[in-house]
Amino acid sequence: MAEYRAVRDRLGFLGLCKTPEAAAEVTVTAAERLGVDAAIIFADILLILEPMGATLEYATGDGPVIHDPVRTGADVDRLREFHPETLGYVYDAIRLARRDLSVPLIGFAGAPFTLATYLVEGGASSTHQRTKTLMHADPGAWDALMGALVRALGTYVNAQIAAGAQAIQLFDSWVGALAPADYRRHVLPHMQALVAAIDPSVPLINFGTGTGGLLECLRAAGGGVIGLDWRVDLDAAWARLGPDVAVQGNLDPVTLFAPIEAIRDAAARILGQAGGRPGHVFNLGHGVLPDTPVDHVRALVDTVHELSAR
Amino acid sequence: MAEYRAVRDRLGFLGLCKTPEAAAEVTVTAAERLGVDAAIIFADILLILEPMGATLEYATGDGPVIHDPVRTGADVDRLREFHPETLGYVYDAIRLARRDLSVPLIGFAGAPFTLATYLVEGGASSTHQRTKTLMHADPGAWDALMGALVRALGTYVNAQIAAGAQAIQLFDSWVGALAPADYRRHVLPHMQALVAAIDPSVPLINFGTGTGGLLECLRAAGGGVIGLDWRVDLDAAWARLGPDVAVQGNLDPVTLFAPIEAIRDAAARILGQAGGRPGHVFNLGHGVLPDTPVDHVRALVDTVHELSAR
Repeated sequence: MAEYRAVRDRLGFLGLCKTPEAAAEVTVTAAERLGVDAAIIFADILLILEPMGATLEYATGDGPVIHDPVRTGADVDRLREFHPETLGYVYDAIRLARRDLSVPLIGFAGAPFTLATYLVEGGASSTHQRTKTLMHADPGAWDALMGALVRALGTYVNAQIAAGAQAIQLFDSWVGALAPADYRRHVLPHMQALVAAIDPSVPLINFGTGTGGLLECLRAAGGGVIGLDWRVDLDAAWARLGPDVAVQGNLDPVTLFAPIEAIRDAAARILGQAGGRPGHVFNLGHGVLPDTPVDHVRALVDTVHELSAR
Repeated sequence: MAEYRAVRDRLGFLGLCKTPEAAAEVTVTAAERLGVDAAIIFADILLILEPMGATLEYATGDGPVIHDPVRTGADVDRLREFHPETLGYVYDAIRLARRDLSVPLIGFAGAPFTLATYLVEGGASSTHQRTKTLMHADPGAWDALMGALVRALGTYVNAQIAAGAQAIQLFDSWVGALAPADYRRHVLPHMQALVAAIDPSVPLINFGTGTGGLLECLRAAGGGVIGLDWRVDLDAAWARLGPDVAVQGNLDPVTLFAPIEAIRDAAARILGQAGGRPGHVFNLGHGVLPDTPVDHVRALVDTVHELSAR
């Protein structure tokens, strides 16, 4: 959206995250313009790594860079304990957005595996070679790293809830890179510890991409809502997860570049697979891509409202 | 391997593909040094696009570039009919490799969806936005493109078999980007046509990555062997595919950077999940990554031989 790009260009991406009035404003504007039934606070999953000691930079076009990656047990030991007040600007943004929103507000955090990949690789990675090698070669250091992240994340997420977040989404964006056996051994216990630490009074969404082989693992990790990307059939995925969890998803974000007729077809298919059962939150299977036509997003929202009301 | 890098640096990547003596030599040397039970011919999935009219370049470090991408129905109409003799260097390499190999030789080709993504995007892509948008916005042009690729691939693969390839692997490297519904509507009929066109006298391996939500679709496409990446449990994936197909995979290639002890554990887990049933071909879940220690690959091969002999 043009409104968002104008504010981001003025403040910079990190500056926007750290200016509560601006972060609340883009959150509220997006929700109002798109007509969605819930908003998610404007923030970034990597913010928590700064007060833990990482030097974070958003290089233009290249994605985030961490200049002092964590690659050994000694590096893990140098991480700082997280003090929740260091991210006070996030809670302030949540409070301000709540004041102006007429729909519920979702808070969020990165899941520990995904945050660990950024810390270890020093940025995004296509193979996660250093992350997996630390995991396999030094499981003690790996567990210490994941433990530190889980402690920080529990505190951070609970502070978001205290500030007014009415649901929490954990973004495990890179978890789909893992073999299920590696997830069970090196990630699952940490996810279970994090879920146990989070205030159970709000819904918790456990979201990953590329999780077609990991659904049972995500279910075991916990959270009352499992986020599905678009690479699975919603009905088959929900059958594997079982009826006692809700699901969120699963439209391919690229579909929004197609003609509106094709967008309507895809939305109808997903709603058909959900079959009107309670516990399906319609959403994209991942984030909105740059240059997505805003009127196509709006048409999708209208379509979902129209088809769900039948 | 150093032997491979020396030849590639001398001839260039495309030059190596187009020099049958050199392509056969790196094929045979790798199989002998690693002690594997089958070899795969050195070639590239994109070679077939040149005689179809695409201008192909392997820019250093950036992956392949196609300078005249196919983005409209008119672009599709301009594609040239494939004449199999234009890839005679591949069949020559197969004949030469067969002469020197003591293990079976696998030929291969890209699957039509994956080749279409390169043609439409002009190279690799993280979102496949142009490909999917062509598929959704102009299904007629999409079907014409896929049909042209299927005709070419059937001819090409059969010429490899005639030259001596003893099995064929179709690489659908990017198929995991698709929603299952898009696969069923826009890819499955074309894959079925390709499988029907391929000489049934040799085993056919249908390989993709990120296919945890697509296994039933791959099964429907055909091929007696389904390639599994590492993102699924082999036993659960095989149960979904059914007992009447063989499976190939599924070790995470990154595991080869771990200590040999961890490599042995991972191989033992996969063999345990296969449970000694006939029809499991041990393999990596994707290609060997650059800088993989050759002695670790060799240790893996030895481990699999040792554990399989029990």
